[in-house]
Amino acid sequence: MIETVSTARAFGGTQHVLRHHSTTTGTGMVFSAFVPDHAEGKRLPVLWYLSGLTCTHANATDKGEYRRACAEQRVIFIAPDTSPRGDGVPDVPEWDFGQGAGFYLDATEQPWAGHFRMRTYIEQELPALIAEHLPVDMTRQGIAGHSMGGHGALTVALRNPERFRSVSAFAPIVSPLRCPWGEKALTGYLGPDRNTWRAYDATALIQDGARVPELLVDQGDADGFLHEQLKPWLLEKACRAAGIPVTLRMQPGYDHSYYFISTFMADHIAWHGERLRN
Amino acid sequence: MIETVSTARAFGGTQHVLRHHSTTTGTGMVFSAFVPDHAEGKRLPVLWYLSGLTCTHANATDKGEYRRACAEQRVIFIAPDTSPRGDGVPDVPEWDFGQGAGFYLDATEQPWAGHFRMRTYIEQELPALIAEHLPVDMTRQGIAGHSMGGHGALTVALRNPERFRSVSAFAPIVSPLRCPWGEKALTGYLGPDRNTWRAYDATALIQDGARVPELLVDQGDADGFLHEQLKPWLLEKACRAAGIPVTLRMQPGYDHSYYFISTFMADHIAWHGERLRN
Repeated sequence: MIETVSTARAFGGTQHVLRHHSTTTGTGMVFSAFVPDHAEGKRLPVLWYLSGLTCTHANATDKGEYRRACAEQRVIFIAPDTSPRGDGVPDVPEWDFGQGAGFYLDATEQPWAGHFRMRTYIEQELPALIAEHLPVDMTRQGIAGHSMGGHGALTVALRNPERFRSVSAFAPIVSPLRCPWGEKALTGYLGPDRNTWRAYDATALIQDGARVPELLVDQGDADGFLHEQLKPWLLEKACRAAGIPVTLRMQPGYDHSYYFISTFMADHIAWHGERLRN
Repeated sequence: MIETVSTARAFGGTQHVLRHHSTTTGTGMVFSAFVPDHAEGKRLPVLWYLSGLTCTHANATDKGEYRRACAEQRVIFIAPDTSPRGDGVPDVPEWDFGQGAGFYLDATEQPWAGHFRMRTYIEQELPALIAEHLPVDMTRQGIAGHSMGGHGALTVALRNPERFRSVSAFAPIVSPLRCPWGEKALTGYLGPDRNTWRAYDATALIQDGARVPELLVDQGDADGFLHEQLKPWLLEKACRAAGIPVTLRMQPGYDHSYYFISTFMADHIAWHGERLRN
């Protein structure tokens, strides 16, 4: 069951906002899907975009400026929510934990374990749903994300290398084990045993043997979270040690906002598009 | 006095959000200005963008997708608010009148006459302010707008043909004299004498002798306001009778939203850019 929240023509395609009941999170979940025009019966590659702290599907959908490039590259763009939401879902007043801050993991600690299962949602339930309802070619998937969503893109791809041909990130959290956002969230969702965190840390996954073909990362050098939270050099170092080619582009003057993301979005989509062609 | 609300690097330029005290409206007013990178001392042409009902500067700034094209065309993009706002400013509960619905006119009726002076604000105060504070070449100005802001762009340009080299609109209100939004707003702001409305009706201005060199208008044919409120054929007819070349492009399947505006924004900016070159 999938319900249309809104649908609109845009850039020679259709921007859908869709809602469904998730059996994984036990809540209604909203996501957006941009589908370029295509011949009847044709299936298009899909680029997943995972958003950062505080975001819903709407931030990227409104401000991501991805539609022109996706229409040119003939790529479907999926923007999920960042956590379960709603009255029955636990929350805290902070913006970096709880609703809007799901960290793309399956929580094991209470009160989060019941609903906060974004790993399974992104890895299993939502792919099955879009494969059924949208004209996607699931043999051609790429994934990207911003900040907490960059962490999501990297870790989902590293754990599922057979599923993704391409992975990129905008200002990602590269090592939740080694930053305050990560330490707070993973302690809360997974408990104090840091060994359980390694499946949700891109650098630890690489150290533990996970591989992707290559990585593209853009990072603004005026990003206020760069030195304390993001530390892309930790990813670069892990990739070098593992022999994963990584392109880390430090973008002078750019901050952590959608002004930064939208500036480089078309580059990322073209990069994915090349790798998602037949 | 001009105060920076925010500033961020974007698309090889700088997106400013600025605030000043307006002597025209008697309130603080916020607007946004995107300034492409340019050589020290160089002045760039400016494109004004007037927004529609309910909008602030933020709608176009967040969702307009104008920055890449403005950077390419080397055009400064100014997005003003649509009315005065704040606790001391009169308002009504409706979304199509009062705050957020200034209709780019100088009100003569109470309680609006004190603050609702968006015509003078857009025609005089804000141009003087940006000429002083931003690297604009005021001999090269263009203007565009959406819906109520399309009405604003058309009427401001028709009353000030010496100021603008180029005018375009997205789904404009072309004749407030002949649509419910216009009749409600102009009755409220200007009173029942319809002769006073003609200075704020693009088709009446043209009938009364006002001229611009040419017009570009995009209109979605799935726009729910097309037949009752917008009626672009009234503008086309007035232009034909007056010998003003008008390009009215009916865009199949597009609605009234920013999905429509952003799709055709780059086209409009390129069109203005051609006309704003030295």
